[in-house]
Amino acid sequence: MANNTITASKGFLAACVQCGVKKSGKADLALLACPTGANAAAVFTTNKVVSAAVQVCKEHVRSSRIYAVVVNSGNANTCTGRKGIENAITMCSQTARSLTEIRDTRYESRNILVASTGIIGKQLPIKKINTGITKAAAKLSASSKAGLDFARAIMTTDTKPKQAVRRLILGSRATGDGTRITIAGAVKGAGMIAPNMATTLCFITTDAAIGKSLLSKALKRTIGNSLNRLTVDGHQSTNDTAIILASGLAGNRPIVGQCPRYKRFANALDEVCNDLARQMALDAEGATRMFKVVIKGAATKADAARAARAIADYPLVKCAVNGGDPNWGRIICAVGSASVKLNPNKLSCKLGSITVFKNGSPIKFDVKKASKVVSQTEHTVTVDLGAGKAEDFCYGCDLSAEYVRINADYHT
Amino acid sequence: MANNTITASKGFLAACVQCGVKKSGKADLALLACPTGANAAAVFTTNKVVSAAVQVCKEHVRSSRIYAVVVNSGNANTCTGRKGIENAITMCSQTARSLTEIRDTRYESRNILVASTGIIGKQLPIKKINTGITKAAAKLSASSKAGLDFARAIMTTDTKPKQAVRRLILGSRATGDGTRITIAGAVKGAGMIAPNMATTLCFITTDAAIGKSLLSKALKRTIGNSLNRLTVDGHQSTNDTAIILASGLAGNRPIVGQCPRYKRFANALDEVCNDLARQMALDAEGATRMFKVVIKGAATKADAARAARAIADYPLVKCAVNGGDPNWGRIICAVGSASVKLNPNKLSCKLGSITVFKNGSPIKFDVKKASKVVSQTEHTVTVDLGAGKAEDFCYGCDLSAEYVRINADYHT
Repeated sequence: MANNTITASKGFLAACVQCGVKKSGKADLALLACPTGANAAAVFTTNKVVSAAVQVCKEHVRSSRIYAVVVNSGNANTCTGRKGIENAITMCSQTARSLTEIRDTRYESRNILVASTGIIGKQLPIKKINTGITKAAAKLSASSKAGLDFARAIMTTDTKPKQAVRRLILGSRATGDGTRITIAGAVKGAGMIAPNMATTLCFITTDAAIGKSLLSKALKRTIGNSLNRLTVDGHQSTNDTAIILASGLAGNRPIVGQCPRYKRFANALDEVCNDLARQMALDAEGATRMFKVVIKGAATKADAARAARAIADYPLVKCAVNGGDPNWGRIICAVGSASVKLNPNKLSCKLGSITVFKNGSPIKFDVKKASKVVSQTEHTVTVDLGAGKAEDFCYGCDLSAEYVRINADYHT
Repeated sequence: MANNTITASKGFLAACVQCGVKKSGKADLALLACPTGANAAAVFTTNKVVSAAVQVCKEHVRSSRIYAVVVNSGNANTCTGRKGIENAITMCSQTARSLTEIRDTRYESRNILVASTGIIGKQLPIKKINTGITKAAAKLSASSKAGLDFARAIMTTDTKPKQAVRRLILGSRATGDGTRITIAGAVKGAGMIAPNMATTLCFITTDAAIGKSLLSKALKRTIGNSLNRLTVDGHQSTNDTAIILASGLAGNRPIVGQCPRYKRFANALDEVCNDLARQMALDAEGATRMFKVVIKGAATKADAARAARAIADYPLVKCAVNGGDPNWGRIICAVGSASVKLNPNKLSCKLGSITVFKNGSPIKFDVKKASKVVSQTEHTVTVDLGAGKAEDFCYGCDLSAEYVRINADYHT
């Protein structure tokens, strides 16, 4: 059976252990390694309060080669002051030490990336984590089981592991220089998700040969088109991080900018990340269904993005989706308060393919059919602002009583 | 017993009837009249999609004297095109006609104000409403029962009528020129409440003699300090309206700007509106408790207001309050993503009087005591951004599973 986990790309090993950060006894420490070294790029939260892990990772990702990523779940290592920074660095140095012991090559702390997710404001149990890192390093494997373990160990309130893989041939098969490359990703999401990533930890591996700066460009672009289009509760967290590692072991002619091969690589990366974003929306805390908001007729692309997000974030719209109610009035209300240019006499709205509001006036429509559309696992809301030609979109999910239960019952 | 309703101010009469807009059979048409005429001022939603009632009311409030306000609940008369505007005008002309018949004075449509609240996108059952207006006009009364009826008839998902009254002596009692004046208000709120008012309909009466332009200044100021500080779900509706009517029948020397009497009047108006805002927070859809967010140490007042609102609107903070959980991490996360200037090393947070986070590091605190604070009906969250000297505040409420149930089960 094909490996459809993060270890599907050549050169990558993964492992996880339960080291005692999570009280539940579930796996809480994950390791992703590329012993031959990878080009790396990352995108981080724009929250002004950031995890110590993010601060350290930002520094380390500048290194020319990266050999591993160490991740703990259950504790965000955020609002933890200087001690938190020390602990994040310790996680990297312990990973480097453990890899050195096993691989008999010298790995340095600055070539290791780190990520954390979980509760804010508590110091990491660093001794337990160090022990966990040593154990995980000893278990590193390229198996699909190890990849799945990794995807599971990074979860917090996620209910299932979220993974995506794309394989494609770069170059021409006819002339014999076609090379199969793989892009694989694993992500954790749940609550606190909004454009600009939030409590998203996203790890992508590829065996394609591609330079560091082009890899960085590709990652930024794709995150902008996928994870940053997803809003669960309108806020970004202190910890979000998306990392891509390229081992170059596929053996393809290195991908360079402007070439058709770059386009194909970037499209496949988009597919992986959109797949992950959709999985995140459906596995958001308490979510039962997701929806895509498409804005047309906006004066500017920024207006379109703003209007889309205003709809997807509006609690009353999210509740209506939860109830399977074609309540377009709340959609129009959200748009009206989004501070975007609109023409009230040209404003229109569709639920799926059903027009419910046109040129500022209500339209008679089949309420039962519209309810069916809104009750699907996924549907699309389209709003035309009647103010220009720009378009944009975003993904949202419903707001359920279960979301409140999860977040009210969770105790610090 | 003292009249503590909107008819407490001299010169005002109220009435309500059930005319058939609401399917529940509850009162859905309310009339507030001042047959001798009142100076009037109003503040409206800044949503770009506005109710036909708001559009008509904006025009009519320019008239030098206002004789009545007609309000229907159960239908917002929003997204109803030209027909909606015609219906809003008809409500005013029918009110003028009914008053003319009863009072034997000629009242004009342009001297009547109108407000609507309820579902968006449906045409008003205008015949039923016209019949209702005639019936209500015949019942107009200065009794406290009539005032309470008014406060009830404007409700939608509100669970209780919300009213406030302040009485004060203007001028000096010693020199014999002291005059008792009254300020009374009634408000409807529930969901869709955010700074800039949202589905707030607020009606204030006073018998003080005060000119139209000064009245307008006083209203704008006080709404900015009270109703616009309240956020329930982060969005303003298409219908919010605050109206103040001054009959001048108290017999005081007319209040003019800059005089101590204006200050006393403005303070009493603040008290009435803050009282109403607090009642709204506690009666917000599904709310079980409210909280005040105070921001200190901001670089600018705008930053302080933005940070306060970011916290009060953040679903995870609202869920934590619902669960009585002193989860300051979510508060700091909300502040960090608010796009305001802050110093991460000086950032501090207090729940009630308990410091839980200081200068960027967690503080050991009594979790049980902090839980108690957060479980009160009202508590204060204070955050110091460490970036300046500006301050601001806002009010918020918790997010409960009940909020979701109300808004998911509500069907169009």
